[in-house]
Amino acid sequence: MAGKNVPVSPLAPKSYPRPPALDGVVFATAEAGIRYKGRTDVLLVSMPEGTAVAGVFTTSKCPSAPVDWCRANLAGGGARALVVNSGNANAFTGMKGQEAVELTAAIAAEELGVKASEIFLASTGVIGEPLDATKFNGVIGDCARRAEGHNWLDAAKAIMTTDTFPKIATRTVKIGGVDVTINGMAKGAGMIAPDMATMLSFVFTDAPIAAPVLQALLSRGTKNSFNAVTVDSDTSTSDTLMLFATGTARTRGCPQITDAKDPRLAAFRRALNALLLELAIFVARDGEGARKFVSVTVEGAVSARSARRIAFSIANSPLVKTAIAGEDANWGRVVAAVGKAGEPAERDKLTISFGPHRVAHQGARDPAYSEADTSAYMKNEDIVIRVELGLGRGKDTVYTCDLTKAYVEINGDYRS
Amino acid sequence: MAGKNVPVSPLAPKSYPRPPALDGVVFATAEAGIRYKGRTDVLLVSMPEGTAVAGVFTTSKCPSAPVDWCRANLAGGGARALVVNSGNANAFTGMKGQEAVELTAAIAAEELGVKASEIFLASTGVIGEPLDATKFNGVIGDCARRAEGHNWLDAAKAIMTTDTFPKIATRTVKIGGVDVTINGMAKGAGMIAPDMATMLSFVFTDAPIAAPVLQALLSRGTKNSFNAVTVDSDTSTSDTLMLFATGTARTRGCPQITDAKDPRLAAFRRALNALLLELAIFVARDGEGARKFVSVTVEGAVSARSARRIAFSIANSPLVKTAIAGEDANWGRVVAAVGKAGEPAERDKLTISFGPHRVAHQGARDPAYSEADTSAYMKNEDIVIRVELGLGRGKDTVYTCDLTKAYVEINGDYRS
Repeated sequence: MAGKNVPVSPLAPKSYPRPPALDGVVFATAEAGIRYKGRTDVLLVSMPEGTAVAGVFTTSKCPSAPVDWCRANLAGGGARALVVNSGNANAFTGMKGQEAVELTAAIAAEELGVKASEIFLASTGVIGEPLDATKFNGVIGDCARRAEGHNWLDAAKAIMTTDTFPKIATRTVKIGGVDVTINGMAKGAGMIAPDMATMLSFVFTDAPIAAPVLQALLSRGTKNSFNAVTVDSDTSTSDTLMLFATGTARTRGCPQITDAKDPRLAAFRRALNALLLELAIFVARDGEGARKFVSVTVEGAVSARSARRIAFSIANSPLVKTAIAGEDANWGRVVAAVGKAGEPAERDKLTISFGPHRVAHQGARDPAYSEADTSAYMKNEDIVIRVELGLGRGKDTVYTCDLTKAYVEINGDYRS
Repeated sequence: MAGKNVPVSPLAPKSYPRPPALDGVVFATAEAGIRYKGRTDVLLVSMPEGTAVAGVFTTSKCPSAPVDWCRANLAGGGARALVVNSGNANAFTGMKGQEAVELTAAIAAEELGVKASEIFLASTGVIGEPLDATKFNGVIGDCARRAEGHNWLDAAKAIMTTDTFPKIATRTVKIGGVDVTINGMAKGAGMIAPDMATMLSFVFTDAPIAAPVLQALLSRGTKNSFNAVTVDSDTSTSDTLMLFATGTARTRGCPQITDAKDPRLAAFRRALNALLLELAIFVARDGEGARKFVSVTVEGAVSARSARRIAFSIANSPLVKTAIAGEDANWGRVVAAVGKAGEPAERDKLTISFGPHRVAHQGARDPAYSEADTSAYMKNEDIVIRVELGLGRGKDTVYTCDLTKAYVEINGDYRS
C-alpha cells in the first residue's frame, strides 16, 4: 500500500545513505502475489555460515506465527537466511499459521541448502487470513539465484507497507582496530496497525560477535530506541527486531567478541545504539499522517522508569498530539497528561517547556510566558517538550509524532 | 463553545426527560464573562439545610484548585450550594487558584447566609489562566434571587462546553414505601480536554441518606458507570462527580438511611446506578466527533479487573476506534488490542464477536465468517464488541465512541 494516495511524509529524510555490502550477505525481492498482484512482497536475505543472531519481539500475548517461530529458533544462535513477506501477517491463523511458517522455512532451507531452524521469518499484513505459503515455491529459489549485496535501499523499500519512505541507516566503527560495518533497515508507520503497519527492523553486521553478546547488545539497545517510540500507543502482534552478525570481519583480523563486557566493544555499542535510535526515529517521523516529530523529555522524576511512564503518558495523549497538529501551545494538556500518568508528581513543582520557551513553572503559568513566541515555535516541524518534575534524578526521552486527520483517514479507510 | 460550528451528535437522544422539582433545591444561571461575553458561564444550585454530600474526583496528580477545595470540604458531610463555572478550569494556577476558590466560596456563603465550607465548586475551561473570582461578585447574589427548581434542562445546558447536547436523567423509586426522586446532569465530551471538556456530573436526591452511606453508594456506582467510559483515554485535572441528598422526603415519611447495608436502600441503589450509567453513556455518545457508540464486553478473563483492563485496551485503541469510524470490521485490531493489554490471554482460546457475528474463534478466523454480513453490521450507529477469553469467570463492560477526523479537528483547532 506504500504511496497509495498517501504523499511522502514531510518529515522524510532528504537523501539516503548507501550502506556498503557485507561479505556474504546477499538479498533479492520478488512478487509472490500474497495479497496484491504487481507489487514486491517478499524479501530474501541470505547470510554466510557462522552468522550469529539475536532478536527482540512484540510483548503481545497474541503473537503471530512467525514471531513464535523466530523465538523458538533463536536458541540455536545461528542464522542463514531471513524471509520477510508483506500482505499477510500470518497472525491469528491457528494451526494453519504454524504449518505456513514450517512450509516457508522448509522451502527456503531446501533452496539454500541449510537447516530450517536457521531460517528466520517475519510477516506483515492482514491478520486472520491463512497465509498460502505454497506461493513461496519457486519464488524463494529465484530470489536466491538473483541475490546480490549492494542495493540496501531496494531491500528497505521491499518491506514497506503504509510507510511513505524507506528507512535505512549505516555505521562503520572499529573493533580491535579493524573496521566493521552495521547496516540496518526498518519498516513501520503505526506501532501496530496489524493490517499492515507492524514495526519490523533488521540489522546486519560483519563483526564477529557471539550470539549471547549480540542478544545483550540488542536487548539493551532497544530500550532507548524502538521501545522509546510511539505512534499511537498500539502494539503489533508481529513487531520484530533482529540483529545478525556474520563475523566475516574476522578474515580482516577483527577479534571475536565473546564477552558483553569486552572493552573493545565500546565503539560498536555506541554505533549500534545510535543506528537503532536513527531507525526508530524514522518510524516516528513516518507515523501515519504525521506532520510533526515530537520528542518528550521528562527530568527530575523519582526514577528513570517513572520518567518514562510520564513521558509516554504525554506522548500517547490524543489531546497533546492533536494540539501539536493544530500548532497550539496547549501546555494545559501536558499538565493533564503528567497528572494522569499515576506516577509521583507534584503540581506545584512542575516546570514545562516547549522548545526554548518555559511555559509553566512551580505549578502555574510562567510569569514570562509569551503566547506569541510559543505559538511561533509550534510552527516548527520538530517540537521538543520538556517537563521538569523537581522530585529526583530520573530522566528519560521518548519520541512520537502529532495526531492528524490523515491518521484517522489512513486507518479508517484502510481495508476498504 | 457548545454548538460553535459543531453539529449536534447524531448519537444524541431524541427527547429529554422533565425531572421533577426537589423541595428546596433551586438554581439559576448567569453570564459572569469569565472568558467569553454573551454566554452563560455560571450555574448556582442552592440546597436546603441538612443536605448531605458525597463526591468522587479525578485521580490526576495535578488536580484543579476547585477539586482540592471540594475534597477538603467533603469531610464536613454537609452542603448548601454548588457553584459551577465554565471558561476557566482554575487548574495549574498555583496560590492564586486557591485564593480564587476561597473568594468564590466566600461570595456564595455571604449571599446565601451559609458557611463557606458548605459551598462546593467546579470549574472547567482553560488551564493555567488565573480565574478572576471578583467577577462572581453580584452575579451569585443575582442567581440566588432568581433561582427556581423546575428547569433542569436549562441547568444542564449551562454547564455544557464542547458538549453538543445537554445530559440529564431522572428516576423515582421508593424507600420505605415513600417516593424519592433522583435527578442528575452531566457534561463532558472528552474524558479530559483540560481546555473545556472535563467531565462534571451532579446528582441530587430528596432521599434522607447520611453522608457516609451516600459516599459508599456513589463510590461503588461510579465503578460501572463513569469509570467504565472512555472517549480518548485522557483524564482531566477537574473531573468531578457529586451526589447531594437533601433529605426532604423525610417530611413525607421517608425513613432516614444511616447504614449502607440497609435493605430498604436496594431499589434506590439500583436506580442510582442506572442513572449514573445513563449519564456516563451520554458522555460517550457525545464524545468529540463521535459518530458511533461502542460497548466492549470482555468475558472469560481471569478476574473482573483483568477483564476491565483488556476492555479498556480495546476501547482506547486508536486503531480499533478508527476502524469503527471507517465501518471496517477489522477484528485483527481487536486481537492486537487484547494482546497488548498485558493481561492473561491465550491466542488459541480467543473468541471475538461484532454484534451477532462471531468473527474469530479458537485463535483463528471463524470458519463461518462472512465479510458481507459483518460489514453490514458495522454500518449500525451502536456497535457491540464481545471478547471471550476462555480462561476464567472475570467479566466487564466499558463504553466508548469511534475516533473520527472531527475529533482531531475539534481538538487541534481548539484554542485558535
